[in-house]
Amino acid sequence: MPEAYVVGAGQSDFGSFPDETYRSLFATAFEAARDSVPAGLDRSAIDEAYVGTLGVGGRQLGLPGPAVADHVGLDGIPVTRVENACAAGGSAVRQAVNAIRAGSADVVLAGGVEVMTDVSNDAVRFWLGVSGETEWERLSGTTFSGVYAQMASAHMAEYDTTTEHLSHVAVKNHANGAKNPHAHLRFECSLEQATNAPTVADPLTLFHCCPTTDGAACVLVVSEDVVEEFTDERIRVAGVGAAADSVGLFQRDTYTAVPASQQAAETAYAEAGMGPEDVDFAEVHDCFAIAELLAYEDLGFCEPGEAGPYVESGATKLDGELPVNPSGGLKSKGHPIGATGTGQLSEAFHQLSGTAGERQVEGARIGLTHNVGGSGGAAVVHLLEREEPRSSGDASGPRPRASEDGGEAR
Amino acid sequence: MPEAYVVGAGQSDFGSFPDETYRSLFATAFEAARDSVPAGLDRSAIDEAYVGTLGVGGRQLGLPGPAVADHVGLDGIPVTRVENACAAGGSAVRQAVNAIRAGSADVVLAGGVEVMTDVSNDAVRFWLGVSGETEWERLSGTTFSGVYAQMASAHMAEYDTTTEHLSHVAVKNHANGAKNPHAHLRFECSLEQATNAPTVADPLTLFHCCPTTDGAACVLVVSEDVVEEFTDERIRVAGVGAAADSVGLFQRDTYTAVPASQQAAETAYAEAGMGPEDVDFAEVHDCFAIAELLAYEDLGFCEPGEAGPYVESGATKLDGELPVNPSGGLKSKGHPIGATGTGQLSEAFHQLSGTAGERQVEGARIGLTHNVGGSGGAAVVHLLEREEPRSSGDASGPRPRASEDGGEAR
Repeated sequence: MPEAYVVGAGQSDFGSFPDETYRSLFATAFEAARDSVPAGLDRSAIDEAYVGTLGVGGRQLGLPGPAVADHVGLDGIPVTRVENACAAGGSAVRQAVNAIRAGSADVVLAGGVEVMTDVSNDAVRFWLGVSGETEWERLSGTTFSGVYAQMASAHMAEYDTTTEHLSHVAVKNHANGAKNPHAHLRFECSLEQATNAPTVADPLTLFHCCPTTDGAACVLVVSEDVVEEFTDERIRVAGVGAAADSVGLFQRDTYTAVPASQQAAETAYAEAGMGPEDVDFAEVHDCFAIAELLAYEDLGFCEPGEAGPYVESGATKLDGELPVNPSGGLKSKGHPIGATGTGQLSEAFHQLSGTAGERQVEGARIGLTHNVGGSGGAAVVHLLEREEPRSSGDASGPRPRASEDGGEAR
Repeated sequence: MPEAYVVGAGQSDFGSFPDETYRSLFATAFEAARDSVPAGLDRSAIDEAYVGTLGVGGRQLGLPGPAVADHVGLDGIPVTRVENACAAGGSAVRQAVNAIRAGSADVVLAGGVEVMTDVSNDAVRFWLGVSGETEWERLSGTTFSGVYAQMASAHMAEYDTTTEHLSHVAVKNHANGAKNPHAHLRFECSLEQATNAPTVADPLTLFHCCPTTDGAACVLVVSEDVVEEFTDERIRVAGVGAAADSVGLFQRDTYTAVPASQQAAETAYAEAGMGPEDVDFAEVHDCFAIAELLAYEDLGFCEPGEAGPYVESGATKLDGELPVNPSGGLKSKGHPIGATGTGQLSEAFHQLSGTAGERQVEGARIGLTHNVGGSGGAAVVHLLEREEPRSSGDASGPRPRASEDGGEAR
């Protein structure tokens, strides 16, 4: 089974772009990913592509994968759309890794894209709603903020988690996102601002919820057989895990954990022969602040019920013991559904390459990404590891390009 | 790289079922697939699942994979939706094979499902339209019958193909479908009926177009390491090929061939070390009669331009030299978008198992399936091969169950 390596990744800016289309955003991310490959990567080298997207707004609901691949000049290769709601991007990367490991491809593109800001709020609510439990949640009026508010309420009731704990997530992620030139909401916020913001779904305030965002992100995955053609900075996919669960929150045994995240993490850790103690930084799925707290517990960063005090301790800040969401996370960087998972991988790639600019986690060698679909109907976890150089005296191979902002472009 | 084997497959009836849901249809197909496994297959043995669906009607557009998997009692395993429009099912099977070959799973479910008849004709046209080229085909009024009509007109102009040639496809497929207890349109038709039926999009008549159908189909794929636990009738996935192309017909160089089909077939034949001359029967994507004629040429069954005379010769009838669409094809069996590709694999499995009842192709050892998305934006080809028994004197292992109608249930 050939090992899979990430040799390049990039993203468009995340934000609101009335002059862009899903094709143009994808093309920007694709070129940024290609540009980040130390020795370059011609599009003719790409054997296959996977594209994650939900299709918000109903644009190109069938064949969006071939549509964007064609737009960037990839024809005649297999292109497959994968979708697991907000975990579509992470699922696309997982399929890319599978294709490498199956020996059916040497160079695979995993991309994600979503355009959300050109339709009405009602339309966004519909398109996200049909990723929740359609029959018994959406049609009875439950929104995603409502579902996550139920999880927050349950966590508060069971573990003395507070609104301020939720706000600490927002403060940290906005502080990080303010350093990220590609982030949607590039500003800092205070604990008071976050806590006293208008309520969206009690106990969640506006600052406990991620924005509606346009964007794209692409990741280039290659097999060990060809990795040396592209880089001598070897960033290996050390572990991959995924799991699905009931789509409806009400169908699950617990509201204070996401079983699919736990299962996906367990699989990824086992495959990598690693544990949470090995992780240097993580990009986790903070669609709502409570989701980041649950992720700490589900991924083993702290004990169940301890996530509130853990975030308050500063452990997950950029200079903490385990920085979480150095990119700004979904909260500040933004959450363009299909692009979120590939965007997490892009951040992890640049952190491990040492090209994350102001938000660089010093000495990062192992990164974890965690992408959730719906309220936990699906989850995907990746572990990336920067391998030590094979021969320290060899300076003749390709070197990573230096960049102040992460080597990405738009 | 572990080889992949199909050990079971089944489908719901295809048709119009106002009392069914996508969940209930999927469950029927899932149980039919499990029932077809000679030694049985407990759901706890399933390591992973892929689900193909377009989501016609807007039901559960996000996470439909986890939704149906949960409904049949599969929790905690990875479940991923794949979509390539009408090639969603074939793409799901391909991902299942990749998972086996990557060594990440031993038993994988590939399923497909679609419910189409409970929404208006206008709605169906919309949901299919967004699988065509959205911006320059659908929004300018082009329908799928319109796109395929252009392909038919071009083939007629270039090769003297006639309306009667198209009608021969309908006559043959209805003759086969009339023998299939799971087919949607279980009746025969005459050449005159097909030719003189009302025009849908000139030159295509009603009988040159497939129906709008509800249905589900499931396939169980396992690795060589465990195949003996389930069967001693070994049906191997000998080759898989896939390709994508421009979504819009107008964007391609040719209207008289589907380049993605040609590329997918080339890849599958090369992987299997086979050619068209080795194929004993084929299930091809006859969404419109012209599509079956193009498939003959693209898959190498006859020379370019010869498909009309080829079908007229009877070569592809059930008792011909190369039976095509013994199931009745999309034309008669029906075309529930996401379930069509897995339905093709189900038919191939039962043909190779000798359990295809009245429509059995005698002595079938190698079968080909061909699934197309849109007007050729994606294509997937599988080659299945029934291996000779390993030891002819060994009668102690599990034996295939006999069945008059294909071992399927509803």
